[in-house]
Amino acid sequence: MKEDRPLILITNDDGIYAKGLRELIDVMCLFGKVLVVAPERAMSGMSAAVTLENPLRVFEVEKNDNYESYKCTGTPADCVKAGFNLFEKRPDYVVTGINHGPNSATNVVYSGTMGATMEGCLHGVISVGFSLCDFDADADFSKAKVWVARIFQKVLEKGLPERVCLNVNIPQGDLKGAEICRQTRGHWEEEFEKHKDPYNHDYYWLGGNFINEEPDAAGTDLYALKNQKISITPVKVDYTSLETVEEMKKWKF
Amino acid sequence: MKEDRPLILITNDDGIYAKGLRELIDVMCLFGKVLVVAPERAMSGMSAAVTLENPLRVFEVEKNDNYESYKCTGTPADCVKAGFNLFEKRPDYVVTGINHGPNSATNVVYSGTMGATMEGCLHGVISVGFSLCDFDADADFSKAKVWVARIFQKVLEKGLPERVCLNVNIPQGDLKGAEICRQTRGHWEEEFEKHKDPYNHDYYWLGGNFINEEPDAAGTDLYALKNQKISITPVKVDYTSLETVEEMKKWKF
Repeated sequence: MKEDRPLILITNDDGIYAKGLRELIDVMCLFGKVLVVAPERAMSGMSAAVTLENPLRVFEVEKNDNYESYKCTGTPADCVKAGFNLFEKRPDYVVTGINHGPNSATNVVYSGTMGATMEGCLHGVISVGFSLCDFDADADFSKAKVWVARIFQKVLEKGLPERVCLNVNIPQGDLKGAEICRQTRGHWEEEFEKHKDPYNHDYYWLGGNFINEEPDAAGTDLYALKNQKISITPVKVDYTSLETVEEMKKWKF
Repeated sequence: MKEDRPLILITNDDGIYAKGLRELIDVMCLFGKVLVVAPERAMSGMSAAVTLENPLRVFEVEKNDNYESYKCTGTPADCVKAGFNLFEKRPDYVVTGINHGPNSATNVVYSGTMGATMEGCLHGVISVGFSLCDFDADADFSKAKVWVARIFQKVLEKGLPERVCLNVNIPQGDLKGAEICRQTRGHWEEEFEKHKDPYNHDYYWLGGNFINEEPDAAGTDLYALKNQKISITPVKVDYTSLETVEEMKKWKF
């Protein structure tokens, strides 16, 4: 039988064995043939990092009529590159997640899930990242999955502009619809926890508190989430501040 | 003597022993007290990755009246966080590089140097990343250094908008001035080189060719570099596509 279903490449940053990944596979099998290439271990906070100093390996995990899955020793963005380079058919879409925990506000900068989504976007295909605001390894994805299907279907219908992908964050609990948002301004404070190892040497662990710099701003992703709405934030892979280009052209060197 | 010089935090992604870092220290000592926190090994392609799954360690390397330097086991962005968290005085500026090799076009997405620059920007200080278009470990930075000083001095004079940092790329050879640019559109092709290890197992190495999708577009960073001009690209840490927000608000869910 000739394969005429679209090919959907899935990855995440919680690793190949995360529950959220299996839940996303379930949903995406509704839309086409699924190709999973996911990190062999958790890769949270990896941003769009790629592996340049070390080799990469890719191993088959599972194969059936609906999907094939592979684990990769690299980062989430490496997994997307693997999906585009090591298989006969070029993926038609890249879908990432479902992340355990939100990737809202400035955390999009650090997110491995969103790094992979942006990598899909750089390959010129529709790319969407999904995150559930629940860090539990056994989180309940049942309500989220219905919305993942609904949002993805809408994206297929409407399309996305070139060089723009989506960052979708889904609250836990009762959902009051979806809202198109902008990235909330904020930053991390008190980021280094100091500890001592058994040999009395100092080490640090990155932690800290996220400070929302505009907690009452309607239209931001954190505001939507606080009001039990799904936030859908369109994300650019062109980082240029065009306003600043115009302003700086007046500078004389 | 009371310290009244500004504190300039320096990091890079080529590691604490890279020549480009030492050259940048030289230049930045003209502008203030320098605090170096740099990765203990090469961290190219690390984007804005942060270390969440592992501890971090920081070791003093050198200390004198003009600068203190520390090596860190983490990523370039971790190094910036360390610079803001582990020392008495908060840095006034973050300056990164001088990178061995360009961080132009879409490579800003993968660059550890620019990930660190964006981390500085997220901390609310003026942040500038410098790269030389020469991958040689013993590259000649003499012409570049003069321009690093000149550009940084101009930035101090003019300031930068909030949530905007600079990505400065400097060609090797004769320089024909500096130009304010936007990020060139492009992508990587044929990214996976296949090899066999001594045990006959496959492995891959990320390589490939960068495809410039707009090679003749004046105003792009690659066009400036091709014409022997320094490219200065203002980079946003807010990735929202505001045009797409407006467009998507018409979608009905």
